[in-house]
Amino acid sequence: MYLKRTAISLEEAKEKLAGITVTPKVVRVKSVEAHGFVLAEDLRAPFPIPAFRRSGYDGYGILAHDDEDFPREFTMVDEVGAGSTHESALKSGECVRIMTGAKVPDDVAKVIMLEDTEALSGNRVRILRTSAKSNITEIGEEVARDERVIPAGTRLNAGAVSVLAAFGVSEVSVYKKPRVAVVATGSELAENARPEDGKIYNSNGPLLSGLAQENDADVTGVYELTDDLEATRELLARLTAENDLVITTGGVSVGDFDFLAVIAQENDCLFNKLAMRPGSPTTAFLMKGKPVIALSGNPSACFTGFWFFAEPLIRRFQGQTTRIRPGRGILRDGYTKKNEFDRYLNGVNGADGVSLNGHGQSSELSSLYQANCFYRIPHDTAVTAGEEVAIWWIPER
Amino acid sequence: MYLKRTAISLEEAKEKLAGITVTPKVVRVKSVEAHGFVLAEDLRAPFPIPAFRRSGYDGYGILAHDDEDFPREFTMVDEVGAGSTHESALKSGECVRIMTGAKVPDDVAKVIMLEDTEALSGNRVRILRTSAKSNITEIGEEVARDERVIPAGTRLNAGAVSVLAAFGVSEVSVYKKPRVAVVATGSELAENARPEDGKIYNSNGPLLSGLAQENDADVTGVYELTDDLEATRELLARLTAENDLVITTGGVSVGDFDFLAVIAQENDCLFNKLAMRPGSPTTAFLMKGKPVIALSGNPSACFTGFWFFAEPLIRRFQGQTTRIRPGRGILRDGYTKKNEFDRYLNGVNGADGVSLNGHGQSSELSSLYQANCFYRIPHDTAVTAGEEVAIWWIPER
Repeated sequence: MYLKRTAISLEEAKEKLAGITVTPKVVRVKSVEAHGFVLAEDLRAPFPIPAFRRSGYDGYGILAHDDEDFPREFTMVDEVGAGSTHESALKSGECVRIMTGAKVPDDVAKVIMLEDTEALSGNRVRILRTSAKSNITEIGEEVARDERVIPAGTRLNAGAVSVLAAFGVSEVSVYKKPRVAVVATGSELAENARPEDGKIYNSNGPLLSGLAQENDADVTGVYELTDDLEATRELLARLTAENDLVITTGGVSVGDFDFLAVIAQENDCLFNKLAMRPGSPTTAFLMKGKPVIALSGNPSACFTGFWFFAEPLIRRFQGQTTRIRPGRGILRDGYTKKNEFDRYLNGVNGADGVSLNGHGQSSELSSLYQANCFYRIPHDTAVTAGEEVAIWWIPER
Repeated sequence: MYLKRTAISLEEAKEKLAGITVTPKVVRVKSVEAHGFVLAEDLRAPFPIPAFRRSGYDGYGILAHDDEDFPREFTMVDEVGAGSTHESALKSGECVRIMTGAKVPDDVAKVIMLEDTEALSGNRVRILRTSAKSNITEIGEEVARDERVIPAGTRLNAGAVSVLAAFGVSEVSVYKKPRVAVVATGSELAENARPEDGKIYNSNGPLLSGLAQENDADVTGVYELTDDLEATRELLARLTAENDLVITTGGVSVGDFDFLAVIAQENDCLFNKLAMRPGSPTTAFLMKGKPVIALSGNPSACFTGFWFFAEPLIRRFQGQTTRIRPGRGILRDGYTKKNEFDRYLNGVNGADGVSLNGHGQSSELSSLYQANCFYRIPHDTAVTAGEEVAIWWIPER
């Protein structure tokens, strides 16, 4: 069976996928389990910080009108540890011992640092000198009540989770992580096969599942299918019904067993050929409205396709945009192989430029785990070492 | 109780911690659960890749001496799908249909792409033209048997896990993630307290626990302690016995309730004062040989201290070095506040330079989740906008 295919550009393909309707779902999660989720609504301060006049140092709190004629002696009437309070009014000549972080009584105007004092016998203390600053952080000086402290759309990392804790927020609204299923097709995949008999182990399944997890998807399963059109059709119908996104690998090239390409034709096909290598047979379609990204079985094409096509969708389900950032890089090596299509290679952009492999290793397989970017070799021209090329930074590498 | 403290520099403190003996433990984990672990031994290819002569395209395999006089007709004697094999020898004028990724029979010299052929009736096919290349990837062309494909010390990401899968490696030796306990001290921390009464919610516990997890530690617990010397001593004795590293927050400043500083003196104290702000009372000691990093209760000092002191240790337990990378940045704003010590601020280094806060927010608390670097303001000089400063990039931000 030969399918009609018209190659479109990478940019056109990305636009077609960007046109898919994606409806992020909002769920409530406990703050202690919110790490890695994206906040769905602004976090506003339920109370100011500090919520009380806070001492910046260990020292002695004194009244405003006692703040003169140093050195002079005081009577310490109470000790205020962090978490404690002292409510009674001070008289002139009295002071309270105040710890770092403790609540400063209302009538205390200044905290004199311990270093500027001398303990005497009993409750007596000598304050040697005043300080230029009050050493008191006033209510709301750091965060005002109702101030926006984390905007909606922020991915919650350790720092953000600590902000939730600081405000005693026990539950937050976040975007539900999209449910993603991964399907590896091909009779050549077999778990206990002898590799020399034409079989290969399924490495694209773990690759796509790992990448989806690294990008905060909820991976519901990794499936392996032999080359069987009806079984593929049935599995995809079930998986699209149960998931937000299905990513497949294999079964898209021009060939008799390329069932994904056939199933794309039976559904709402977005594209089935791209003017890029690797990954020119990359296909995308909607099955009852649910997106299926059908990548080729080539590991590099799988890797590139995940980042260019699946990752932006996974982000959109979480109210965000792709984390891939475009940039420019200097080629470490030339590339003279003629290309019908632009070539998008995964590479390492380091101190000595951008190259296919950071450590001089040759295999395509082992380049994936080292890659921190993609770079483009234009189709119509040979490029030489030192030339500037378009790159796309892979996040968190 | 006043303790003797001598301030040492950040670099000296780091060196003292680097001098601690750390013995990484090696464990076996299933490859499917190996994501985020660091490989403890080189992964060498148990078989070459490809393990068989592999077709790069869908097409027809022909003998070497039939590779001439095109166009000419052939009889197709078999179809070899990916994962299948064809063993019998071809005769002149015969060809085999071969799919992308399939095993090419030994006697086939070249695979002619489908696009360069025409199907005729029955098993007959016309090959229109030859190709310059064989379109066959020879055994071991990508990875030789026993070649090192992932070096020891590599943190396993999705790409690396896919390499394990490609070689059918079901279990690997990795470094055990260090067991890390977090202790937040201070009577001011209380879960159901009214914040206006001088209490604060414990945000440093979740911060340190989240950071430790982001850095591949096995966080065994987050503990809260009131200011009680004996209880602190007992908890630390238990936690150091059960963990590889204990990180505490609070209780290190100059003051009566600063029990961590006292306990440090009773043990093998590495340092208890640093010539830096925030975090000058940062303390580190060994309790029966186990490291305790005692950070101050200031959230920024906690954050900075985690990255400069705890993170390198967590990495060392996994056979690695810190992921913090030094660099240079241009100050967006000047900083005229006089400092006794160098100031290490967390900041955002972006297109418009490095600044305390990326989005113009003022609170120290909300700066942590946005920070992608630290930068240094020297203690002896005022710095102005546009000046170059030392920065340290925080990984994965």
